[in-house]
Amino acid sequence: MRRAELLEEIVKRRLFYWPSAEIYGGVAGFYDYGPLGLAMRRNIVEKWRRTFVLPYQDVIVEVETPIVMPEPVFKASGHLDHFTDFVVACTKCGRRYRADHLVEEELAKRGVKISTEGMSAEELQRLINEHKIVCPACGGPLGGVERFNLLFKTTIGPYSENAGYLRPETAQGIFVAFPRLAEYVGRRHPFGVAQIGRVARNEISPRGGLIRLREFTQMEIELFFDPQNPKCPYFAEVENLEVPIVPEELVAKGQADPLVLTAREVVERGYANEWMAFFMALAAKFLKELGVPLERQKFLGKLPHERAHYSAKSYDQMVLTERFGWVEVSGHAYRTDYDLSGHGKLSGHEMTLERRLPAPKEVEVVRLYPNPGAVRERYGDKMGEVIKAMKENESVILEAFRSGRQVVVVGPYAVTRDMVFIKSERRKTDLEKFIPHVVEPSFGLDRIFYVLLESAVVEEEGRVYLRLPPDVAPVNVCILPIVKRQDYVEIGRRLVRRLAAAGFSVVYDDEGTIGSRYASCDEIGTPLAVTIDEKTPVDGTVTIRDRDTKRQVRVGIDEVAAFVDMVKRGASFSEAAEALKAAPV
Amino acid sequence: MRRAELLEEIVKRRLFYWPSAEIYGGVAGFYDYGPLGLAMRRNIVEKWRRTFVLPYQDVIVEVETPIVMPEPVFKASGHLDHFTDFVVACTKCGRRYRADHLVEEELAKRGVKISTEGMSAEELQRLINEHKIVCPACGGPLGGVERFNLLFKTTIGPYSENAGYLRPETAQGIFVAFPRLAEYVGRRHPFGVAQIGRVARNEISPRGGLIRLREFTQMEIELFFDPQNPKCPYFAEVENLEVPIVPEELVAKGQADPLVLTAREVVERGYANEWMAFFMALAAKFLKELGVPLERQKFLGKLPHERAHYSAKSYDQMVLTERFGWVEVSGHAYRTDYDLSGHGKLSGHEMTLERRLPAPKEVEVVRLYPNPGAVRERYGDKMGEVIKAMKENESVILEAFRSGRQVVVVGPYAVTRDMVFIKSERRKTDLEKFIPHVVEPSFGLDRIFYVLLESAVVEEEGRVYLRLPPDVAPVNVCILPIVKRQDYVEIGRRLVRRLAAAGFSVVYDDEGTIGSRYASCDEIGTPLAVTIDEKTPVDGTVTIRDRDTKRQVRVGIDEVAAFVDMVKRGASFSEAAEALKAAPV
Repeated sequence: MRRAELLEEIVKRRLFYWPSAEIYGGVAGFYDYGPLGLAMRRNIVEKWRRTFVLPYQDVIVEVETPIVMPEPVFKASGHLDHFTDFVVACTKCGRRYRADHLVEEELAKRGVKISTEGMSAEELQRLINEHKIVCPACGGPLGGVERFNLLFKTTIGPYSENAGYLRPETAQGIFVAFPRLAEYVGRRHPFGVAQIGRVARNEISPRGGLIRLREFTQMEIELFFDPQNPKCPYFAEVENLEVPIVPEELVAKGQADPLVLTAREVVERGYANEWMAFFMALAAKFLKELGVPLERQKFLGKLPHERAHYSAKSYDQMVLTERFGWVEVSGHAYRTDYDLSGHGKLSGHEMTLERRLPAPKEVEVVRLYPNPGAVRERYGDKMGEVIKAMKENESVILEAFRSGRQVVVVGPYAVTRDMVFIKSERRKTDLEKFIPHVVEPSFGLDRIFYVLLESAVVEEEGRVYLRLPPDVAPVNVCILPIVKRQDYVEIGRRLVRRLAAAGFSVVYDDEGTIGSRYASCDEIGTPLAVTIDEKTPVDGTVTIRDRDTKRQVRVGIDEVAAFVDMVKRGASFSEAAEALKAAPV
Repeated sequence: MRRAELLEEIVKRRLFYWPSAEIYGGVAGFYDYGPLGLAMRRNIVEKWRRTFVLPYQDVIVEVETPIVMPEPVFKASGHLDHFTDFVVACTKCGRRYRADHLVEEELAKRGVKISTEGMSAEELQRLINEHKIVCPACGGPLGGVERFNLLFKTTIGPYSENAGYLRPETAQGIFVAFPRLAEYVGRRHPFGVAQIGRVARNEISPRGGLIRLREFTQMEIELFFDPQNPKCPYFAEVENLEVPIVPEELVAKGQADPLVLTAREVVERGYANEWMAFFMALAAKFLKELGVPLERQKFLGKLPHERAHYSAKSYDQMVLTERFGWVEVSGHAYRTDYDLSGHGKLSGHEMTLERRLPAPKEVEVVRLYPNPGAVRERYGDKMGEVIKAMKENESVILEAFRSGRQVVVVGPYAVTRDMVFIKSERRKTDLEKFIPHVVEPSFGLDRIFYVLLESAVVEEEGRVYLRLPPDVAPVNVCILPIVKRQDYVEIGRRLVRRLAAAGFSVVYDDEGTIGSRYASCDEIGTPLAVTIDEKTPVDGTVTIRDRDTKRQVRVGIDEVAAFVDMVKRGASFSEAAEALKAAPV
């Protein structure tokens, strides 16, 4: 645990993050991010956008939807019914426990190692009874195992019956806006929609620091495609990238070690379709560039009972950490048409796109025609709007009347049977409606943040520092007068203001020895340190020092910004030094 | 309302934003942001950071804290008691109304114009009775006027008594973390802490589109300073900037027109201290650079009964819109030590900094010394921690015992009188503790977003477009083959991929006439349009067109990225053309 412990010390001393509301004793599952933590998180988000969204912006767009959503959303999505954990309460002291964790932990104490993943209430109850598990705090008897819904519930507006919930995933905001989003992209497909934002899950008793939070940040993409054509137009760009994968069939046999396949092989062997493999390949590359080598990554197939209620196939991207073992940093789910169908049914809105048939064919179509007289009689002035709504929801209305219903509500209007003519016609068409299927890569920012920090810890030659990639390091450059002399200080402060105004994250420090200040820069992962010394007032040059090698070069003070910018954008120290003709020190 | 109407059409057609959960009939006060809306919002946030935070990062740091916060936070902050509106319900149909709005609207219908701002329940009740106001929907009699708390309430974890609330302002996350933040900056002062994030207010019946939302995004800074020294070290940079201000004394006289003063004059006349004036001057400049001229801005002083419960002085930065009249886009409050004192008292934690006295003086100090025997007896092993907690909370403990309490809780420990020795000593010191005062500029992103859109609408020579500043326009550049010819399309798509990979926001379009495509780029405010034409395959040049003047120049295709980048960073079209030696067309 050496790395994790060294990291903990740095996190505490430099205040990367700390428990929220500490002055009130804290609240489990909530953390504040300090300036360094926030800067690094923001950089990770930007890198995610540069990896998953920006290069593909002709197909993948980005949206922002609210955190609070009304009840029907989670009725349709299945979260009200299925997004639960099991809770068990002590009948003596009233303490409540997450049942599966309690059973695992109490049995582990007795040397029995089992996995409760996917267990039913009955199975957990049976284990509690069989093993006579009692309250670990007071020894009292436990009550029955019950379902506990993990949605944070609230009330919207002054009517207590209007329930709202904090979204447990950003995805639902995308699904319910599907008709608008399809309109935005001109109904072309495939298309993807990304969202980055806060979500909340009311965990029963979260532990594990940033790994299990009640409020956290997700970065998700919902990729909508025709299930008859799961081709990814960018697949050629990733097909040779390596994906360490443990497919379901091996998971079922108890294998934990991944096969290292190319994205192309993942598809060819039927482990994932092109879109899933595309995102998995990018996800592996993303983490690798952030300092997590492929050897510490794997995509673990989830067996049917381990998957979320909406998923027909899932891989969890796992990263091996010192403190928490294998940690899931992203989930890759094949959500099929589960969500769009659910919202379509409950809302009465069509959630479809159209595919072109290889050749036009004559089909028997049942068509709906509004009966203007009846519509006018009922809705008068609003006739036009009603007819528009009827046309937009043609298939929903037809389906309802076919199944014997007498009235269909579309938006604010009630459509009765007498308001429509239904005719069967034969016609030629080369278009066919379908509900798109969805592949979803979903990243947990907070976990990635932790994983990167732990991966970055380096201990060598008696120094400890974070070897963070320069594009995610919270501070771009430290400015250090070699001693606190008036002219050095002035030059240093001017340089800081210039770099700060240019948008860089800069730290200025003139207290203590230069060695301790280098160490202080290094331990938060700052890639570059600029020193102002006796030559600076004379010839206008400063030294720039590389965090990892401690190598120094000399450049003009006016070139510092360019140097910092090059390194931030991915150049190595040597490349930047060469490009700017820096002199060796 | 011409501008506002033209804007509404663009917003609808180009899907900048739309009501959330539309397929379920929508929920008042919640909006989704489409790709263009989000891109523009993100650019506004970045510009805000470049204006208020990054240049001053040696004094102002940035944090991120959760949206859900536990109950004591809002008990201490006063929100549980004071963050309320008045609600009145119809006794017949059950509909509920915001009482002050109802009274204003119903009286307005009768030609009586009054302002209910700051009215008590009794006053509102009296008006309802006097004017015999009834339910506007059903005509039924209204019940009594009651307080309605605007905090969204939820429950944290499995215990129903653990209330949590969605924060109504990002500020409280900063105040409760004050001890950590003070530690982060090395207890230097002044220092500021910025936070950008979602907040929620459970408005009774929100109307007014983006202007009154139940969930929205704030950009806030809490600036902590010594009330004996409200000097802003950067004041010289803003002192000559103009601030259109209506000070309280003029507001009280019914004056609505602002005086246009320099920031220096605002301070000299006692209308605000340096920190308040600093942020107000920057705020005026910020909006001006975003396209809102000073003539449509004013800082309106708030009279005591109009201010939030925590504020001793407030200015609202107002912008004149067509649709909503004067709209508040930022609030500038002098929160004094209201919040830190409240949290200090309720939590028992010290929320202080230290100031250096001009000369050391001998003072009578009452000091606390732990009684090791008594501490060990009570807490055994934990003795060290308890003593540490006692020292950190010395003044709180002393104050408690002085006021006669028998036990003080510090963190998890109960300190009884026998556990301490209290001694009065004379000593020399040049340090003195104080609770910092707070100046807070607080910006509403959603309102600024709306205001900018409305301000950007231009109708000239039969065309309508958004003259958005290039640094906030949602799309940086459109790529348009002049006709849809295979080689033009290929060149165009390659250019799009290159620009997209470089992080620019790019739109590609090859459908329809070039004129309609230019119009389509212009109407979302895209500053530049690149055309691929017959010369491009021959000599590798393209044309770049200026949105505002429709002027075109010719550059090499490899220079497009640099051109786009220059304009995005603030260069005019002419400057970029000249710098890149572009040829006139």
